[in-house]
Amino acid sequence: MTGIDDLPIRDELRGKSPYGAPQLDVPVQLNTNENPYPLPEPLVARIAERVTEAARGLNRYPDRDAVELRTALAAYLTRTGKHPVSVGNVWAANGSNEVLQQLLQTFGGPGRTAIGFEPSYSMHALIARGTGTGWISGPRNDDFRVDLAAAEKAIAENRPDVVFITSPNNPTGTAVEAETVLALYEAAQAAKPSLVVVDEAYVEFSHRDSLLPLIEGRPNLVISRTMSKAFGAAGLRLGYLAAHPAVVDAVQLVRLPYHLSAVTQATALAALEHTDTLLGYVEQLKSERDRLVTELRAIGCEVTPSDANFVQFGKFDDSHAAWQRILDQGVLVRDNAVPGWLRVTAGTPEENDAFLDAVRAIKKEQSS
Amino acid sequence: MTGIDDLPIRDELRGKSPYGAPQLDVPVQLNTNENPYPLPEPLVARIAERVTEAARGLNRYPDRDAVELRTALAAYLTRTGKHPVSVGNVWAANGSNEVLQQLLQTFGGPGRTAIGFEPSYSMHALIARGTGTGWISGPRNDDFRVDLAAAEKAIAENRPDVVFITSPNNPTGTAVEAETVLALYEAAQAAKPSLVVVDEAYVEFSHRDSLLPLIEGRPNLVISRTMSKAFGAAGLRLGYLAAHPAVVDAVQLVRLPYHLSAVTQATALAALEHTDTLLGYVEQLKSERDRLVTELRAIGCEVTPSDANFVQFGKFDDSHAAWQRILDQGVLVRDNAVPGWLRVTAGTPEENDAFLDAVRAIKKEQSS
Repeated sequence: MTGIDDLPIRDELRGKSPYGAPQLDVPVQLNTNENPYPLPEPLVARIAERVTEAARGLNRYPDRDAVELRTALAAYLTRTGKHPVSVGNVWAANGSNEVLQQLLQTFGGPGRTAIGFEPSYSMHALIARGTGTGWISGPRNDDFRVDLAAAEKAIAENRPDVVFITSPNNPTGTAVEAETVLALYEAAQAAKPSLVVVDEAYVEFSHRDSLLPLIEGRPNLVISRTMSKAFGAAGLRLGYLAAHPAVVDAVQLVRLPYHLSAVTQATALAALEHTDTLLGYVEQLKSERDRLVTELRAIGCEVTPSDANFVQFGKFDDSHAAWQRILDQGVLVRDNAVPGWLRVTAGTPEENDAFLDAVRAIKKEQSS
Repeated sequence: MTGIDDLPIRDELRGKSPYGAPQLDVPVQLNTNENPYPLPEPLVARIAERVTEAARGLNRYPDRDAVELRTALAAYLTRTGKHPVSVGNVWAANGSNEVLQQLLQTFGGPGRTAIGFEPSYSMHALIARGTGTGWISGPRNDDFRVDLAAAEKAIAENRPDVVFITSPNNPTGTAVEAETVLALYEAAQAAKPSLVVVDEAYVEFSHRDSLLPLIEGRPNLVISRTMSKAFGAAGLRLGYLAAHPAVVDAVQLVRLPYHLSAVTQATALAALEHTDTLLGYVEQLKSERDRLVTELRAIGCEVTPSDANFVQFGKFDDSHAAWQRILDQGVLVRDNAVPGWLRVTAGTPEENDAFLDAVRAIKKEQSS
């Protein structure tokens, strides 16, 4: 039987597995940082309206430059990010993964390297591999914060072409201070002209403001965002970036033409009309996230301070065994292969209660 | 003012322009091979229903493997392609451009090369550039057919990793015989194990059958398809491939996880439910395409035999000037930079009449 290894695939892909969390059918799914709140029915109806309109012109290519959508995203960023941006500052694609892929195709690629400070969002390294960009695993402290001195040293030594800073960080939930980002930007530019990408996929859940204002006067700084989390639209696949207009021009050299479908643009525009309602859910989730932190500590867990819609908790002698024991109780959390730690997404109050009960049961076993 | 060239982009991107036809606001647009028939209202209503259902679960990630959609595409191919395929043979992405990009990331990339026989679909070379794959421009005859002996020689000399065969070819409309594809496949495998991609974006408009049955027993042969043309859904961005299941497994090593949104999957599934109606429009367009060929020849134009929903016509001493003169009369056709030739999409009968009138006027000018 012919298999992958019988095909003339690239050598570095041999023996690799596709990225993706196990999709298991269990009652409480807190493993992929999804927003537990379905879109409200008035928004569902508005999506149907907008998509109906788009479907009537579906025989034509979509707006290649997605101008209406980028204008709406710019308005959202201006309103919430404490910095005015316009359509020329914003670019959108099928999920922030595609945004990051386009950035690496433009600023990374063969013969170039990118660095991230790990553990972090593992897709950064995988998209680097997929674009032929060399990957450098930079360090974090034991408390999962970026160790500035060590990070500056890694940048100076490796002179990467692209620097990823994830804030809040996934899977640890750790935010990065503006001062640290600025210092890393300076270190990166001192080593060689290079792109600094601040991945703010979870920033709406943070105790801190977005780092959006930092793009001012820094053409090599990019803020990456998504509608998957705060807008409760993981199924929509809509990521975007804010940066100097020259960066937006540059990614258009590699973007596939008409990459963003008319139905995606229509659905995203509908969701942006309902921003206030959706940000209301974000506030509920922040409260639940904080409750998870408090209760996990009360149970006796260690918890990494979280600015995201998830919480990293531990420590377990065998975190994969703990993951399985929680799963046995009908609750799916994420094992990100950070030794001793697991990650739980903030769900509805009921889901979080079920999760906390499962952890309590484990702790009781351990102490008995 | 900071521009692209002030950014640390890859050297090979410097001075380049984004791909894309001019989007001009003129009455008759026959420049991008779109289907002129809007989706029928019952299908628009079905899309709204399916998307409403999808929107209710939009807070969750979409089916990462798009199983329902790939199953429906396999049923369509089995029915129309004279060869049975199943879900494991089919992969889908955001337009055939993304399918081709994933194939090049897997089988091409840095240190590897791809060949196409030009003039052909210019995105093949551009996606090669975007994935770091070296590009080899293979030859065609003066009548725009693939010169088998010259093509075999080019393959033997260059030993490419990926071979593109576009049938029907864009922008010339030329179909490639099965025997030629088989000979090129053998030549490619003899040179080195390599992937042969038959791009059948326009095959539903052809006088010939799809080459789908050729995948049997040939794990390195891929058929690429799209819903943009025959399904009248350029705005949907849904491309797909059929191949040995090992190829489907292989592209999943580079595909971005959850690349295909829930609304895209829902819309495509709705369109596939209306296959019969949409294939009826294809028959109308084939008649109009044949009428364009006949009438252009009666006017005194040269026409390349077409198996697609467009026609290449000429010859003009200055094809760009002819393009402009046709545009001056409110009809936008495509100048693909094939010296002496232009390309017109088969539109509605009224659009085609307007186009033919414009060409007649030019011819009258030239002869007066």
